[in-house]
Amino acid sequence: MKDPKGTNLTWHTGEVDLVARRRAHGHRGATLWFTGLSGSGKSTIAHRVERRLIERGAFAYVLDGDNVRHGLNRDLGFSPADRVENIRRVGEVAKLFTDAGALALTAFISPYRADRAAVRERFDAGAFVEVYIDTPLEVCESRDPKGLYRKARAGEIADFTGVSAPYEPPEAPEIRVRTAEHDVDACAAQILGWLDARGYLDGDEGETER
Amino acid sequence: MKDPKGTNLTWHTGEVDLVARRRAHGHRGATLWFTGLSGSGKSTIAHRVERRLIERGAFAYVLDGDNVRHGLNRDLGFSPADRVENIRRVGEVAKLFTDAGALALTAFISPYRADRAAVRERFDAGAFVEVYIDTPLEVCESRDPKGLYRKARAGEIADFTGVSAPYEPPEAPEIRVRTAEHDVDACAAQILGWLDARGYLDGDEGETER
Repeated sequence: MKDPKGTNLTWHTGEVDLVARRRAHGHRGATLWFTGLSGSGKSTIAHRVERRLIERGAFAYVLDGDNVRHGLNRDLGFSPADRVENIRRVGEVAKLFTDAGALALTAFISPYRADRAAVRERFDAGAFVEVYIDTPLEVCESRDPKGLYRKARAGEIADFTGVSAPYEPPEAPEIRVRTAEHDVDACAAQILGWLDARGYLDGDEGETER
Repeated sequence: MKDPKGTNLTWHTGEVDLVARRRAHGHRGATLWFTGLSGSGKSTIAHRVERRLIERGAFAYVLDGDNVRHGLNRDLGFSPADRVENIRRVGEVAKLFTDAGALALTAFISPYRADRAAVRERFDAGAFVEVYIDTPLEVCESRDPKGLYRKARAGEIADFTGVSAPYEPPEAPEIRVRTAEHDVDACAAQILGWLDARGYLDGDEGETER
C-alpha cells in the first residue's frame, strides 16, 4: 500500500492506555519502594518478591545499586547533591516502568524523607508503595554482609547511614516488614499478600485503579 | 517462622535469570532503537509496534521525548553535551528494560553514529536492534507535523537536524523502514515480521539467544 506523502500517518502517541496495559499484563503497574538500613534485607527481599511475581507471570524488575550505579548513574558520586540526584533518577526510571505497566521494585537505602516524598509526588495515587524494611540497627550490624559497618565503626567510611549519618524512617509506609522476626519467604509473602488484597495483581480495574 | 538473627537471609541478587524471564514473558528482552529525522515517523511507528506487541501479550514500552524529557532528563537542555547525555541515559534505561525482559522501543532522532554506537556497545549481541526510519528530508519537511521545519528554515531554530545540523544515517541498521512507500501498519508489520523471523517473540531460547 502506497502512501507517498505519508498522509496516513497519524501523529498520536501513547496508543496503549493504562487500562489496556493492565488487562494485557494481568496486573497494574506500580513501584514498590524499599527503604531501610544497609544490611536490612532490602535487596534480598525485593529479589524474592520479584521471583515470585515472575513465577506468577507478572512483569517485575528490581532496580538496585548493582544495575543502576554502574550504568545510568555512573556519572554520580556520593556527595550530598549526587545522592539526591541518584534517588531522583531511580524514581524517574521506576515511574517509567510503572507507566509501562510493570511492578518496579527499588532497593536503595534512601534515608531521607524529603527525597522519598519527592519521588512519591511524581506518582499517581496508589502507584507508589513504600516498603519499610524495619530491621533494627544492631541486627543489620550483626549481619554486616559486606563488612561495611565494621569499616564505618573504624572510621574508614564517612557518613555511613545509621552510624555517622541519619536514617529517617518512614512515618506511614504502606508496608512495614520486620526481617528480625520473619525469614525471607515470609517477608516476601507479606508483601505479595498486601498487593493481592488490594487488587494490584488483578488484570481488571478495581478500587485501586487510578 | 522465626529467624531472629536473620541467618536465613541469603544475599544473592538477581534470582531470576534471562532464560527464566524469557520463558515467563514469552519473548526475549531487546531494545529497538529507532533513529531518523524529525517528522520521519519514528514515534508513530514505534507506538504502533508497541500496541501490536501488547496485543500479543508481550511487554513493550516506548521511550520518547514525551516521557523522558520532562522526567528523567528534565535537568538536561539542548547543548551538545546535554544531547549526548540525553541519548546516553535513554540507552541505559532501555538497557534496564531489556534486562527486565521487555521490548523497549526508543524514538529519538539520535543523529550521530558515535552516540548510537556507544549505546549499542552497552548491549549483548542481538539485544540492540537499530531501526532506521528512512524517510527523505523533503517528505519529512512536507509533513512538518509540529511546524519545526518551517521555523528552522526561517532561522528561528538553530542546529536543526537535516536543515542546519547533520544527520548521520546508519550504515548497517538491522531494519530499514521506508515510510514514504508504506503506511504505518505496513511499517509496523515489517518490524514485527523481522522480530518474528529471528525468534525474538519466542519464549524459548533459539539461535538469537545471547
